[in-house]
Order: sequence, then structure tokens, then C-alpha cells
Amino acid sequence: MLLKNIDILDEHFGVKKNCYVGIEGKIIDYVGQSPPTKDYGRIYDGSDKLLMPGLVNAHSHASMTLLRGYAENLKLQDWLHQKVFPFEDKMGKEDIYNGALLACAEMIRFGTVSFTDMYFMGEQMAKAVLDAGIKCNFSVGLTCFDERNLSDLPIYKENLFLLENYHNANDGQFKVDLSVHGEYTSNAKIVEQTVDFGRGKNLNMHIHLSETKTEHEQCKARNGKTPAKYFYDLGIFDMPTTAAHCVWLEGEDFEILKEKNVTAACCPNSNLKLGSGFCNVPKLIEKDISVALGTDGAASNNNLNLFEEIKTFSIAYNAAYDDVLTIKPRHGLAAATINGFKAQGRYDCGKIEAGNRADLVVLDTKKPWMQPCHVMQNNLVYSAQGSDVVLSMADGKVLYENGQYLTIDIEKVIYHANRSTQEILKRLQTKE
Amino acid sequence: MLLKNIDILDEHFGVKKNCYVGIEGKIIDYVGQSPPTKDYGRIYDGSDKLLMPGLVNAHSHASMTLLRGYAENLKLQDWLHQKVFPFEDKMGKEDIYNGALLACAEMIRFGTVSFTDMYFMGEQMAKAVLDAGIKCNFSVGLTCFDERNLSDLPIYKENLFLLENYHNANDGQFKVDLSVHGEYTSNAKIVEQTVDFGRGKNLNMHIHLSETKTEHEQCKARNGKTPAKYFYDLGIFDMPTTAAHCVWLEGEDFEILKEKNVTAACCPNSNLKLGSGFCNVPKLIEKDISVALGTDGAASNNNLNLFEEIKTFSIAYNAAYDDVLTIKPRHGLAAATINGFKAQGRYDCGKIEAGNRADLVVLDTKKPWMQPCHVMQNNLVYSAQGSDVVLSMADGKVLYENGQYLTIDIEKVIYHANRSTQEILKRLQTKE
Repeated sequence: MLLKNIDILDEHFGVKKNCYVGIEGKIIDYVGQSPPTKDYGRIYDGSDKLLMPGLVNAHSHASMTLLRGYAENLKLQDWLHQKVFPFEDKMGKEDIYNGALLACAEMIRFGTVSFTDMYFMGEQMAKAVLDAGIKCNFSVGLTCFDERNLSDLPIYKENLFLLENYHNANDGQFKVDLSVHGEYTSNAKIVEQTVDFGRGKNLNMHIHLSETKTEHEQCKARNGKTPAKYFYDLGIFDMPTTAAHCVWLEGEDFEILKEKNVTAACCPNSNLKLGSGFCNVPKLIEKDISVALGTDGAASNNNLNLFEEIKTFSIAYNAAYDDVLTIKPRHGLAAATINGFKAQGRYDCGKIEAGNRADLVVLDTKKPWMQPCHVMQNNLVYSAQGSDVVLSMADGKVLYENGQYLTIDIEKVIYHANRSTQEILKRLQTKE
Repeated sequence: MLLKNIDILDEHFGVKKNCYVGIEGKIIDYVGQSPPTKDYGRIYDGSDKLLMPGLVNAHSHASMTLLRGYAENLKLQDWLHQKVFPFEDKMGKEDIYNGALLACAEMIRFGTVSFTDMYFMGEQMAKAVLDAGIKCNFSVGLTCFDERNLSDLPIYKENLFLLENYHNANDGQFKVDLSVHGEYTSNAKIVEQTVDFGRGKNLNMHIHLSETKTEHEQCKARNGKTPAKYFYDLGIFDMPTTAAHCVWLEGEDFEILKEKNVTAACCPNSNLKLGSGFCNVPKLIEKDISVALGTDGAASNNNLNLFEEIKTFSIAYNAAYDDVLTIKPRHGLAAATINGFKAQGRYDCGKIEAGNRADLVVLDTKKPWMQPCHVMQNNLVYSAQGSDVVLSMADGKVLYENGQYLTIDIEKVIYHANRSTQEILKRLQTKE
């Protein structure tokens, strides 16, 4: 496929006008302002369009689409214990698959081509992801409230199974990460055993970190240190880590994240909606900590449109930290693209240059809200809509184009997601 | 026109399934679950769709679309004095018209059917509005930094001209409000004279109120009272008033707004982006003050998509005030619809019931992000996209349907808005 006459967003988030971009298999093999000599087959006319790197959702719980709008205006503990956990408890394998596929459809539509997910039933997740053609780093969130050893927990076998059967499936489309759900949902012994398990395996780690004030303060009361220090001391950060939320980081926490090259996966809409607080993004940027963007689950967002996160990220902390200077449009764009890919260990993604993977998104920039265009990155961050995406591509494969899903039967996906939801609700009512 | 098989959002923001809604001229004349006997001509099949009241943008500066993305990451004073004012100073009549029409296109696309605008060159605004078919309450923002009398200011003649020629134009489609821009942009004498001018004329008032902390505190230092008390004492609130922003209200300010039935036009995205702060929406709701929603100008937002405002309104204050209980989905929906209409003095709008004006929006609810649907109002507030709007109608006239603008030549509007922008920039460079 050859895209021609297309403006591209360069690595500094400036625009190069009227380019040719050639894609051979999974790889971008030509970027230039003159036509390539090679024949690419399909030619895509990019007039009035912008080609940008595909977006990365750095923290999600995809199958929670089934809980979209299910529980509102509840305090976090009530939300979890009265609504979310009982619902999740009734979710079967098919439901995980159906919810995940609905999430994939939504993400693809809004330009997300890769996501970092933590949930359960990894095989169903892998199947949904491989069917949808989107990329994913998936981890089963480890929780353990008793004194068992890691090898006695079901997650141990599941991780072995996933690593053997799905890790790096389809040339890295699906990757298996390890995960410790959070400081408050397991004990130090099991965390250490997880670190031991991961050692030498070249795997990524995905955790929740200081999402709520309660969680952060209780950790300090329990362990005499912050969650960041707790995980640091237990060796978690010796694995390349995505730390979701990071709302209540304080003091040396920032130095720890910087030292260990941890990616803070900021989830602005979820943090605002659940009243969790305001991640200190200006400080993360000042300390040169890598920040990525996540939607969190659909139950606390309630959609998976990363363009909304880019905007909230780019405006909410201005008010919260009385600082309109620090967070610039390029920070939002980097957080939603290259920083997410790096956190996933996907170093050949996130830039439109020859040799990189063709994980790309095309936007229609002729929309009224994208006019005039004084500076494209400003319009992308503050004005663009997820629905401006007219083409999403992962590994050179078109997943969505002009209203059509090419890997997903969207009618069927919606039907099955609704059926799953109804059946879970029935099971809840009958206490099945 | 008869809409059939359509779900409608009722006045409590619940859903009535499978209704018939008949529109005769500008008026809804039938709502029911059985078919009407009358013949309506065009029949619209509303399967998988939701009919809701059209949205109202309660505070905007429409022609500022030309400044979209023009000035970012600046402190308010620098933003205004280095960028916004010099640009505005070069805007001519044609530019006001072109910018306003671009704004109308954007609003109509995202389901806004009426807006309350404050800017300058009212005749051009009226023309743009009447051409676009959208409704508008417009006021010229009064500013006066010297000791002249109101009758010596150009705004005096302009208001007389607008009132005579455009007030209630086209059966109330365009209304002229009065405006005092803000406490800090004029003196008490001129405010009193404006109140005198308005007396007995049955006009609405539109002001900026306590948008920034600086403005609020300087008013207290200058006048020994808050902006709300200042305007109250000068009689401004004796006219039905829309007070934009209301970020820094304190103490008795809330009682004043309640007593005088002032509508607080909350502009969440603008307040966040400019770092102005967080309006105390939970308190406004507790005090039963009418809250409406505005986008503010495109230079500080940077789009006019009211669905984005509904979402930010429904999540940002949860975190800012550590309160997830107070702001419910219905508050966001009321703020974006009926409360805005009431503030405009349009009492026959904002509810889908026989006898009301047909100011309506149809949404496609079959989108992946609107599935499943546990509770429609939750999905509308937290998940829906402005782009889910498939039909916008004001006074019974379809303005937008399935990608087509019916009153606007969108190619031409975009062309002219861009040309205006380029010419203003040229004038700025040549110090013309």
C-alpha cells in the first residue's frame, strides 16, 4: 500500500506536507516527498488527511465494556464491592471474549492500534486480540490475600500456559506481561516470588500504583513507605514497568520512577470520574519521567476513546496545578503514541519512518472543528475527535476504514456483547 | 415530519421506547406510543436511534473559531494581550460572519441547536445565525475603560440598531441580549446606565462572573465585595441573567444567584485549559441554582462540541471536590438542554412534548461505545460522542442529517474561514 499526497506527523509532532509513505507487509519501507520507484499495489490518496502514528492505550481492562454505565455515583469501595466485583464474578470465558472484542472495535474505531491490558482469562483475551488484529500486551492481574506460594495460585499455571502458547503470538502482536495488581491486593512474599518468576524472562510488568489517596496512605501505614518505594524495594521495577495512575506519588517516588525508567500510565478521565484525584503530570514532565495514557476500564470512563484522554490530559492538570505552561500539546501526543509503545517494549513502533512497523492512523482534517489550522498539533490535541479517524492500521493491516471494520463483524460483536451482559445480569439475579 | 419507532429521552432523562413524534411546522404536535391519525408527509425511521432535546451552548464567542489553536500554553494575561486582542483587533465584518458560520456548522454537527453568544459586530452574527438556521441569543459585550456615558459609546447605537432590526428575528430564532462583559472591564456608572437602558425592555443579561481568581480578588480589593455582590447591588440581576464561569463564587454569592434566579453557565473545558480553576458545581447543585453549559470560545477549548462539556462537567468536579455523589448524569443533561433554553428565555424548548418547539437531536445509539446500555443517561453522559448525532433540527427545520448540512455550504464556509484567518494574519504582520 502506498499513501500519497498525505501530510504526516513527524517525530517532533510537526507536520511534513505532501508525503509518500510506502508499506510493505508489516513495515513502513518508504517515507519521502518524492514518489518511490517501487510499485506498492493499492494507492491511497491522502489529500486533506493526516497520517499519524497509531495510538496506544497504556492501561485498560478491555472486557469491562460489559460494565459500561452499570454503576455510577458510588464511592470507590461501594462501586467495587457492591457492583463491579459481583458482576465480574459472574463473567465466564465467552463473556471475557465478547467484552474484549467490543473493546477492540471501539479502540480501533478511535485510532488505538495497541493496548496494555490487565484482567483475567488471558486465553480469551488473546483470542479476541488476534481476531481483531489490534496489538496488545496482556497480563493477568495477580491478587493474593492469603499466605499461599505463587506456585499454588491458579495465576501461576495460567501465566506458564500463556507464555508458552501466546507470548509474542503472530510476530509480537500479542505479548504476555506479568502483573502484580497493586500493593493492597497481595503481600510482599507473593510479590517477591513474582519477581523471581519474571527474572531472566525478559517480560514487562504492569501494576496499579497510588491510584487513590486511601490506597497510598494505607500502604504507608502498613509498610512505613509509599507504594512506589515498596515495589522498588521488592524489585518489581527491575522489570520494565507500566505503573497505572500514579495519582498520589510524593517525594522520592518521582526519583524512583525516573531511576527505574518506569512508565506512568496516566488515566485522566477515570481518575476524575472516580474522584481519585489529579496525577501530578507537570512534575512527571519536569522530572522527565515517561508518561503514557490509558483509558482504564469502560466502567470508570466510560469509553475507550484515547483522543478524549489526550484532551483531558492536556487541560485538567493546568487547573489542578495552576500551571498552563508545562503540559504542551506534544506531551499529550507523545503520551498517546511513542511513550505507550516504548512501555510495551515495542521499539519499532510509534514513528513514521522507514524500517518501523506500520501502526498508523489516518485522520480527516477537513472537519469544521479542525479549521483553521494555525498549528496542527494544537488542533490534534484540543479539537480533534476520535471519530475523525478514517483508517486504522496495525502491522500494515487495515483494521478500520471509512465506517467499515475489516477484521470484526461489528453487528455480531455488539449482539454477543449484549447477550453476555444480559446473561451475567440473569446469573446475578438468580444468585447462580 | 413523523419520527417513528424512536426511543425518546423524557423530561426526567429516562427513555420512552418506540415512540411516534409528529412535527408540524416549528412545533412538536404529537408524542405517543401509538401512531397518530394525521398524515405528516416525511416519515423518519428511528430504529436504533434516540431522540433527545437539542443542546444549548450557554456561553460562547462564536467567531473565535478563527483563533482556534492560535495561542497555547500562555498565562491568561499574555494569552489575551499578546495574542487574542491583537488578532481580534484586525477582525472585520466579513471575518466575524465567516468565523460565526464555521462555529454554527460545528455546533449543528454536534447537536447544538441554540447558543448564547457574546462578541462584537452583532449584525454579522445575526446574518450568520439566520443563514445557518440555528438559534441564538446574542449580546455585544460592553466594555468601557473611561468616564463616558453609555449613550456616548458605540455599543449604545449598536444595541438600538440590533434591537430594532434583529431582536426576535424569524419568530425568535435570533434574540438580542444585553451584556456587561465583566466587573473588571467597565465601571459602576456604565453598569448602572446599562441596567437603566434595559429596564422595561424584557431583555436578558449576559456577563462574565468570577472566571479567574485574580479577577475575583481584584474586584474585592477594588469594591470591597465580590463580583456577584457588585452586580447584585448595581441591579444587573434584576434582568434574567446568564453568568458565565462562576469559578470563584464564595459565601453569599450562591445565595445571590439563587435569589435572583441567575443561571451559572459553567464552561468546564475552558476553565481547565486556561487554568482558571474548578467551578463549585456540587455546591451550585446543592443550592438548587440553575446550571447550564458553555464551550466558551474556540480559542480556549478548542472546539464547540457540547458532548465534551457534558462529560467534563460530569467527571472533573468529582475529583476537584472529592465528591462522586452529587453530580449525577441527569444534571449534565439538564445543564446541556433545558437549563440553557430557560436561561435564553425559551420556555417552549427543551422537552419533547406536544406544543413545544421542535428543537431536536437524533443520535445513533448502535455505536460500539454505546453498548451495552444498562442505563441510557449514563451512556449519553460518559460515553456518547458528538459525532453520534445523525440529525439536528431547530424550529422543525433539519439543519444537519447524516453528514449533510442542509442550510450551510460547508466547503464554502471552511474556505472563507481560512481565507479570513490568512488575511487577519497578514494584517497583523504588516501592522495594517
